[in-house]
Amino acid sequence: MPVGTQATVKALSPEEVKATGAQIILGNTYHLYLRPGCDIIGKFDGLHRFMNWDRPILTDSGGFQVFSLAKLRKLTEEGYAFQSHLDGSKHLFTPEKSIEVQIGLDSDIHMCLDQCLEYPTTHDQAIEALELTTRWAQRCKTHWQEKTNCRNNLFGIVQGGMYPDLRKRSAEEIIAIEFPGYAIGGLSVGEPKERMMEMASVTLPLLPEDRPRYVMGVGTPEDLVELVKMGADMFDCVMPTRNARNGQLFTEQGTINICNARFRGDENPVDLSCDCYTCRNYSLAYLRHLYTAREILAYRLNTIHNVHYYVNLVSCMREAILDGTFDSFRKAFYAKRKPSVT
Amino acid sequence: MPVGTQATVKALSPEEVKATGAQIILGNTYHLYLRPGCDIIGKFDGLHRFMNWDRPILTDSGGFQVFSLAKLRKLTEEGYAFQSHLDGSKHLFTPEKSIEVQIGLDSDIHMCLDQCLEYPTTHDQAIEALELTTRWAQRCKTHWQEKTNCRNNLFGIVQGGMYPDLRKRSAEEIIAIEFPGYAIGGLSVGEPKERMMEMASVTLPLLPEDRPRYVMGVGTPEDLVELVKMGADMFDCVMPTRNARNGQLFTEQGTINICNARFRGDENPVDLSCDCYTCRNYSLAYLRHLYTAREILAYRLNTIHNVHYYVNLVSCMREAILDGTFDSFRKAFYAKRKPSVT
Repeated sequence: MPVGTQATVKALSPEEVKATGAQIILGNTYHLYLRPGCDIIGKFDGLHRFMNWDRPILTDSGGFQVFSLAKLRKLTEEGYAFQSHLDGSKHLFTPEKSIEVQIGLDSDIHMCLDQCLEYPTTHDQAIEALELTTRWAQRCKTHWQEKTNCRNNLFGIVQGGMYPDLRKRSAEEIIAIEFPGYAIGGLSVGEPKERMMEMASVTLPLLPEDRPRYVMGVGTPEDLVELVKMGADMFDCVMPTRNARNGQLFTEQGTINICNARFRGDENPVDLSCDCYTCRNYSLAYLRHLYTAREILAYRLNTIHNVHYYVNLVSCMREAILDGTFDSFRKAFYAKRKPSVT
Repeated sequence: MPVGTQATVKALSPEEVKATGAQIILGNTYHLYLRPGCDIIGKFDGLHRFMNWDRPILTDSGGFQVFSLAKLRKLTEEGYAFQSHLDGSKHLFTPEKSIEVQIGLDSDIHMCLDQCLEYPTTHDQAIEALELTTRWAQRCKTHWQEKTNCRNNLFGIVQGGMYPDLRKRSAEEIIAIEFPGYAIGGLSVGEPKERMMEMASVTLPLLPEDRPRYVMGVGTPEDLVELVKMGADMFDCVMPTRNARNGQLFTEQGTINICNARFRGDENPVDLSCDCYTCRNYSLAYLRHLYTAREILAYRLNTIHNVHYYVNLVSCMREAILDGTFDSFRKAFYAKRKPSVT
């Protein structure tokens, strides 16, 4: 899922997002709640018409942004009290409030409010967060049932820090509440890569095979290949869009930095095997020029390519799974890709 | 002509520029010469393929940017010596050099190097600049004939400061050299609007009717209507693109600022009578949100609308002229448009 934090996938039009093959995008509840605000999006009956996007939208709960962006946040059993990072205004995000806002956004998939954790944490802190996350998940589900009669979808989120026993316990408790889909939260928060992979490999097999399994906030192309191997179905990450704006482009051969002087006069596209709009129409030399000159079109063309790369990667993995050729796909992927940025 | 200073019309793709109806764009020789440089654009046989634009391009001579941007510039009979505003490197722009660079860019219309003037200047200063401009125009023409056998087009530029007698003299001298088209330079450099209109009204009738008459660096929608009335055929101006990036949008009713709080929940498009991509798909409320949130898409959607507005205005004037209804078109234009920004 390309990330469309503020009701736009940064630098792209909805048509361009569609052309990458993306079937669903993510919106950030915290941002949209603060700006433009629920009253405005409500006038448009939700996010779809407001932003001119007619495919599915998943919204997060807002919890992670409160945790990472808001000022003076205070966590209680009731919810998160916080001050807006934009204007300092005071707000309270309870599980019920988060669901209300997501219903107002009319996202196709809502997420439960959970307690996010810094890395590292003690086992005791992780237990506390896990237990609160379970109680909040129940409150989210109850509110969703009461307010919408289970319209659209609500996903539960497994927490448990970096402790396999707690991941297992959280998964059991969240699954017991029963959701249309399940997510793994609290990964990619600063832990070593092996830790993240260990937690995913402990948790993913516990989640019901007949429901979407969503790993939140991850990751590199290599991460996606490994997590799909473990059974993950969905991802969101700012990496394709943010890195594009920083001049990093993903290719089958590896990741390149468009500022590199060796591209100065290069008439080739970013990736000869890519059929995105950028690669079909523009040279490395032109992209480097636009980026060096800080032209707005640079961010767009880079983003089109990166999102296309990610969506295409996941789409190829899906095909390989259906064909029963995932292992050879994975081998070929690593054989081609050099890990470092050049 | 939308302005594409650095081999891109800021915030737009070539397809979007075409969709506004624009038939020709302007490239800035000074900028392109410094970055990416003639060697790079030469590898692509010119600007068209480099930037993926297959319609005509006009390039300016570089003189105006040397005059307004470069450091430590020094004017002699030979040309402009200057240091790059990007890296301080030293360069010499002679009339021959300017033509060489424009030939390398393979623009469809080249412009003669002229001497630009500050406002105000004395009559004597204006005479000196006029005389140098005439000598340089002859050098440009000679070089263009020798190097290309008059391939593509070269336009002469009339100078003369804010002095009607000198405008007349400059027009006579430049016309005597004979060019495929003629431009009026040195307007919109800080003089009062009435002064600019006076100079245009003195100069335009002197230019041959069977050649394009191009007023450089102008102007507001009202300016264009008045100048077309006087016989002008072509314009370039950063106003539609730059103002779009500053949140100013042109409409039939007047110019609006998208930040205005009254648009916060406005479900209407910018202009109900406009059929550009922005107006067909997005509300004022969404555009205000994007702009307030500093989203890259804001600059694009605003620019699409403004360039469409300008191109449509000129296209309607052309139709009205062909229909013999220009005067009533002009009256209707003013009856609808309020002058101030709201």
